[in-house]
Amino acid sequence: MPKLLPVSTLSEAVRVSFNDGIARIAAQVKPEPFKTVGIIGTGLIGGSFALALKRAGLCERVIAAGRQQSTLLNAKALGVIDEAVSMEYLAQHAELIYIAVPVKAFSKVLQQLTPHLSEQAIVCDGGSTKYELIVDARAIMGERIRQFVPLHPIAGSHQSGAAAARSDLYEDRKLIITPLAENSLDDIGLLAATWQSAGASVYCMDAQLHDKIFAATSHLPHYITAAYMNSLLAAEHHELFFTMAGTGFKDFTRIAASSPEMWNDIFYANKEAMLCQLDSFMQQLEEAKAYLTEGEEDKMFEWFKQASDKRKNWHLKS
Amino acid sequence: MPKLLPVSTLSEAVRVSFNDGIARIAAQVKPEPFKTVGIIGTGLIGGSFALALKRAGLCERVIAAGRQQSTLLNAKALGVIDEAVSMEYLAQHAELIYIAVPVKAFSKVLQQLTPHLSEQAIVCDGGSTKYELIVDARAIMGERIRQFVPLHPIAGSHQSGAAAARSDLYEDRKLIITPLAENSLDDIGLLAATWQSAGASVYCMDAQLHDKIFAATSHLPHYITAAYMNSLLAAEHHELFFTMAGTGFKDFTRIAASSPEMWNDIFYANKEAMLCQLDSFMQQLEEAKAYLTEGEEDKMFEWFKQASDKRKNWHLKS
Repeated sequence: MPKLLPVSTLSEAVRVSFNDGIARIAAQVKPEPFKTVGIIGTGLIGGSFALALKRAGLCERVIAAGRQQSTLLNAKALGVIDEAVSMEYLAQHAELIYIAVPVKAFSKVLQQLTPHLSEQAIVCDGGSTKYELIVDARAIMGERIRQFVPLHPIAGSHQSGAAAARSDLYEDRKLIITPLAENSLDDIGLLAATWQSAGASVYCMDAQLHDKIFAATSHLPHYITAAYMNSLLAAEHHELFFTMAGTGFKDFTRIAASSPEMWNDIFYANKEAMLCQLDSFMQQLEEAKAYLTEGEEDKMFEWFKQASDKRKNWHLKS
Repeated sequence: MPKLLPVSTLSEAVRVSFNDGIARIAAQVKPEPFKTVGIIGTGLIGGSFALALKRAGLCERVIAAGRQQSTLLNAKALGVIDEAVSMEYLAQHAELIYIAVPVKAFSKVLQQLTPHLSEQAIVCDGGSTKYELIVDARAIMGERIRQFVPLHPIAGSHQSGAAAARSDLYEDRKLIITPLAENSLDDIGLLAATWQSAGASVYCMDAQLHDKIFAATSHLPHYITAAYMNSLLAAEHHELFFTMAGTGFKDFTRIAASSPEMWNDIFYANKEAMLCQLDSFMQQLEEAKAYLTEGEEDKMFEWFKQASDKRKNWHLKS
């Protein structure tokens, strides 16, 4: 039975996460600065990590590689990175490599990096789904999988690109590590301390549990609001709907405005967990529809009240 | 084909609304102050109306009646009303009567008022659904239905009760009139000017169109978030879900915290329109589920993009 456990030692955190639990870990020391950090994907997520490390004094030089030379030069001009380099150079010289590209592009980047990777480098990523990505990473990296520590920072913005990068994006946000059995405690600990210095609260959990949790709390809501918006668009007088919609509608549909590219990838990368939660949601819709059709007002009341009570007592935790 | 038409005259606004359209009407004059306004239901909605009229100098005296003497005395102590009176006294003396009670309690209040109602009084309400309520009002009031002008102010708050009442609750919010063929243009015009003075933007539309629009943009979202919350509660590790949920979840589920009493009533009062929109929503869920199951990524992308584009280009209108 998974639980959230605050644990004091790293080995305990990893043990808990391997046993299908969640551990909140607090690093006790600030790490030594990295000489060179390599970023692939200098957008909001990667760029903000670079800026946060610089601000915390945790990094002497940030280098970046990627397909689009113009994107890299823009990130450099904005002061988000120090140097644009080749993928090969980055793999050879960076002590810490952060792959912050869309879920779908991850494998290709890892294939390019792996042959040139130095023995000391730690590779991590920012993907919103973890299990399938780890399967791919194992296939690509083989024995070197020990160098890959999968991460998921729970942060974002409506904006994207290097221009949107901010040194405080991870401040009071969660950073989740889904460690592998092959990872060394030292590497996991170093990453935990680094992200903590960037302002994040660090958690450890199993990759499949991670995917279940985020299917339920993040991916499914995006899917639901898209279905909802499309159901309005299918209605006869829908322009009037949008004219008259108010503040409840505004908050409820905010996430529907998210990037179609990003969410399409996430839906497929986390398909099994999504389908499981979707079925449960559709069952609830059917249950309450029966209450409505058959005039079972008391049952409907209890059903709504259970949801309402839970939401009233819920508060955002960092 | 209904349209939103900005119209300059009241008779044009009423004509448009009778033809299944929506008209935005702007009153040209501020009305004379009412001597006595009567409120039934001195909570957030009724109390804020009283305060807004006083602030606008539109009312000399606010009287209130209701079942709970303690509620009335509390509203008086808070300065929201001037006097607590009997239902009979209120019906005889108030020029404008605002029934701001839950949808389910409306008929009973109207039954108590009607036998004592002065010939000059205008009765209006604040119910979130209009068609069934009008059917009930016709049955209760008979010929005096001409004195009843159905309204719906699009405003609310998480808080309730007289203590939550604010003179600016209707500021920059919509007020919808769903006029009856029996209403006089003078009465409709007086209400439009009064609510406009209270800060609201006034619209006229048909009651059934109103119910369709709010089923789609307000009632269904409440139903969806309740189903979603209950689907999480049905899952094995749901406490972890709530621990890890972030800002997207926070906005998406905000309306799930609403009053179960109020929303239960609304669901049943607007059952037909709700079921119609619910079916359309469930069709969208099924459609995208097929895209997910069968790996039709391009179709899923287009489906999500359509929703995303619409939401990106939508802005709250007052």
